[in-house]
Amino acid sequence: MKKMNKNNDLDSIINIIENNDRFLVTSHVNPDGDNIGSILALKIFLEQLGKKVEVVLDDEVPDCFSFLSYSQDIKEYNPELEIDFDVLFTLDSGDWERISDVADLVDKQVIVNIDHHADNTLYGDYNLVTDAAATAELIYQLIIELDKSKLNQDLATAIATALITDTGSFRYSNTRPETHQIMADLLDFDVDVNYITRQIFENNTYQSLMLKAKVLETLEVDETAKIAWVKIPEHFLEEVGATWEDAEGIVGYPRSLQGVEVAVLFKEYRPQEIKVSLRSNEYFAVDKVAHQFDGGGHAKAAGCLLECGLEEAEEKVIEAVKEEIRKY
Amino acid sequence: MKKMNKNNDLDSIINIIENNDRFLVTSHVNPDGDNIGSILALKIFLEQLGKKVEVVLDDEVPDCFSFLSYSQDIKEYNPELEIDFDVLFTLDSGDWERISDVADLVDKQVIVNIDHHADNTLYGDYNLVTDAAATAELIYQLIIELDKSKLNQDLATAIATALITDTGSFRYSNTRPETHQIMADLLDFDVDVNYITRQIFENNTYQSLMLKAKVLETLEVDETAKIAWVKIPEHFLEEVGATWEDAEGIVGYPRSLQGVEVAVLFKEYRPQEIKVSLRSNEYFAVDKVAHQFDGGGHAKAAGCLLECGLEEAEEKVIEAVKEEIRKY
Repeated sequence: MKKMNKNNDLDSIINIIENNDRFLVTSHVNPDGDNIGSILALKIFLEQLGKKVEVVLDDEVPDCFSFLSYSQDIKEYNPELEIDFDVLFTLDSGDWERISDVADLVDKQVIVNIDHHADNTLYGDYNLVTDAAATAELIYQLIIELDKSKLNQDLATAIATALITDTGSFRYSNTRPETHQIMADLLDFDVDVNYITRQIFENNTYQSLMLKAKVLETLEVDETAKIAWVKIPEHFLEEVGATWEDAEGIVGYPRSLQGVEVAVLFKEYRPQEIKVSLRSNEYFAVDKVAHQFDGGGHAKAAGCLLECGLEEAEEKVIEAVKEEIRKY
Repeated sequence: MKKMNKNNDLDSIINIIENNDRFLVTSHVNPDGDNIGSILALKIFLEQLGKKVEVVLDDEVPDCFSFLSYSQDIKEYNPELEIDFDVLFTLDSGDWERISDVADLVDKQVIVNIDHHADNTLYGDYNLVTDAAATAELIYQLIIELDKSKLNQDLATAIATALITDTGSFRYSNTRPETHQIMADLLDFDVDVNYITRQIFENNTYQSLMLKAKVLETLEVDETAKIAWVKIPEHFLEEVGATWEDAEGIVGYPRSLQGVEVAVLFKEYRPQEIKVSLRSNEYFAVDKVAHQFDGGGHAKAAGCLLECGLEEAEEKVIEAVKEEIRKY
């Protein structure tokens, strides 16, 4: 499926929308706020243009996005599904494999690939892949080009949800002037940002708060106060009835300590299987440490898996971080 | 000092800046990101116009804002201070008393009052008081009107810090389209939002994290799962070496629980003095409950003080919330 097609086909994509009536919209598995927001925005927009639109994902929509209008219309892929369509939109999906089994629904239809990932393989017949904080920025651009009058509260809320998720509420360095300009436009449509934010970032289960309490008590800091780490032994989860999902975001706590540069989280997935997450704040390249243990990632966020006990993993990784940080 | 002067004197204020050379800039006690950011932005701007500028506060600059350029030039008020100036700017200060003892430096100078608080008493000789997410928005407006070419990285960083603080990183409902438009402009000056955000929101002491762990373990939820509360007995602070400052933001945890509408935090300031903070997410007016205990606040954030034991305060306030929530 990999072809080296040309990019930035905005005009062609507008033509395709104008000259077709049946669309299938999809995106990647493990859905997040950007892909759910993007597919709903495109669906709402195309339907307002009088098009027939189906949305299929090879995954479930996470509960925290069920507040979005029409999210219940997103179908989960199953082999019995039969959908007539002329054009497939794949959103926020860097390569064809990311849409998973939804690919089975595709035969000879036109494929339009809209995405903001720099390493996108341009697998579409038409591609709109440019640097942006979120794929939803490109959907917004498309809507503005085609028919700005179709913007409404539901559409604006879907796009805002995508922007807020992918920029961590305008905190990450991917946030561009354009991101804020789009958000300024969207606020004209009564978008309830406070509500959206609560659904995405402040939506804890009782178990996750109890887990956080236990994990915080494991906090350790090295003698230079530049390295901080916490751990989650398997039995913590059992004790509070939590799942690994409830541990989401916990590495943010050691990372938030004053003066800390490197934060590490050790998760005991199984007795001899320790998943390690590494984060840095400014200058330290955590991927260098992850590589030492056959892991990967990038400078500010990396990870690796160690097949040993929790204490041993902790000792090895913290020692490697200490070794590395001396070089700075 | 209270006079009913006219408002929205932007043109007069521009005249005053153009026709004077020595300025004193001040703001309220208990400084926050908006007033520190605003006074630094105005100082930087006026100095670039060739003016002589002193900045005095009747308080210390919190450590988390020491990264801002020229923050070390902010003087703390003391009775020996002698400053020659023709014009006083009071920023972000709803009434004259908010600047505290800095008022002692003022004799017959012109007072310019710039603020975004709706209940500002218009105590200045000239006033620029309008609805905005932050006072820094009005400073930005003033700069744009006077000389946009003076915008630079330091100035943009000061204003961005103010906007980010007062909108909770664009999450609060005070965020307006204009707030995002200003932020879009500021990003052209290489503002490091990620860094600013970490200083403001992710800057925990070890003690505050330990305190959070302990407080989270006190989490309780009522039978309807709509009311959640935590408490801080005085001995928690001693046990982890924390101060009440380390308890900042803790009411956000019970408030973040899925489905919760009302969150309550009980702080045992002294054995028979319980400070209660009430927060709601959507529809519940917490000030109604606070009023029952001679407290105050507004619909989504209120507080009161009870002179009784911790358990008794807990019982009384939670009972009052339950009573009230039944009416919805």
